[in-house]
Amino acid sequence: MPRSGAEARRRLQQAALELYRERGFDQTTTAEIAARAGVNERTFFRHFPDKREVLFDGEAALRAALVQAVAEAPDGLQPLDMLLRAFRKAGRILEDNRPFSEPRLAVIAVTPALRERELAKAASLTDAAAEALEQRGVPDRLAGLAAQAGWAAFHQAAQAWIDDPSQSLDAHLSRAFDDLRALSAPVPLTKEG
Amino acid sequence: MPRSGAEARRRLQQAALELYRERGFDQTTTAEIAARAGVNERTFFRHFPDKREVLFDGEAALRAALVQAVAEAPDGLQPLDMLLRAFRKAGRILEDNRPFSEPRLAVIAVTPALRERELAKAASLTDAAAEALEQRGVPDRLAGLAAQAGWAAFHQAAQAWIDDPSQSLDAHLSRAFDDLRALSAPVPLTKEG
Repeated sequence: MPRSGAEARRRLQQAALELYRERGFDQTTTAEIAARAGVNERTFFRHFPDKREVLFDGEAALRAALVQAVAEAPDGLQPLDMLLRAFRKAGRILEDNRPFSEPRLAVIAVTPALRERELAKAASLTDAAAEALEQRGVPDRLAGLAAQAGWAAFHQAAQAWIDDPSQSLDAHLSRAFDDLRALSAPVPLTKEG
Repeated sequence: MPRSGAEARRRLQQAALELYRERGFDQTTTAEIAARAGVNERTFFRHFPDKREVLFDGEAALRAALVQAVAEAPDGLQPLDMLLRAFRKAGRILEDNRPFSEPRLAVIAVTPALRERELAKAASLTDAAAEALEQRGVPDRLAGLAAQAGWAAFHQAAQAWIDDPSQSLDAHLSRAFDDLRALSAPVPLTKEG
């Protein structure tokens, strides 16, 4: 039996991720997750409100990293540059935990219920980033758009990093933000790659 | 009792929207929606799989309008210009039905279960728009980002149009896409409005 609360929490997350991969999210019960983690089901619900939240524990840390990085960005940066700095900081959380991040993203991508929760979390994190930009003087309308476009670039970079670990998440982020800036460029005559 | 299937469908949507506004989504049952529409509950389920879908009937039309407009856009346009054309066409669907569109957006904004469904629909429509851009030769990575950024601009324009009907949805769309292009501009020294 795990002794500390933090250790139980970590084991519950790991157990949930394993079971979702092995038999699918819908076919897994909270009792089974608890059993594999070596705790009882009451302990599961002391840590997580439901089967979905167990994979979204990093949201608070991600939000804090994003908001703080925007708040501390140097004056005079473009909104997208502030966000690139912020997503780089937030990305460390993913990078520090790649063995968990990678299968987690894969499971979410194929599970509609988890995808729905992820979209709701993304919307909430995007709102937080937009608010942080407004605090830095970015006009409201622009802040909302920048946060959403920046989130799209972050999500794309994270996926590319999972698919191609030979480059750092930072490198993938730089490329995704360059793409974002290139959006107004004319359509190329031939398709890349 | 409504005679045709299309009429029953329309009345079910109207009844659901009214009830969600009056007493809230969670407090409304499918039986109550059916009763107000003057049909029985079986008829509800013949038209809609659940209480949420009843407000998302326009998705197929929106998707078709988006995909077709991108397919028919003149050659050589920038991805964002193709999308602006496409969202203008899609926007007609909202404009043609403002008495329904307006309270619908308001109810969704305050109802987490509907907001979650809306985000899932938006993700699916965004994927469709990205695929349409790829068909036009836009590289994959750029197409996905453009579609997501364009959707963010469309959503912001629709909200602005609800808040300020003195301007057309087209005018709000133009402004939102201009904002999107301005994202790389330096942060202004003072906050607007």
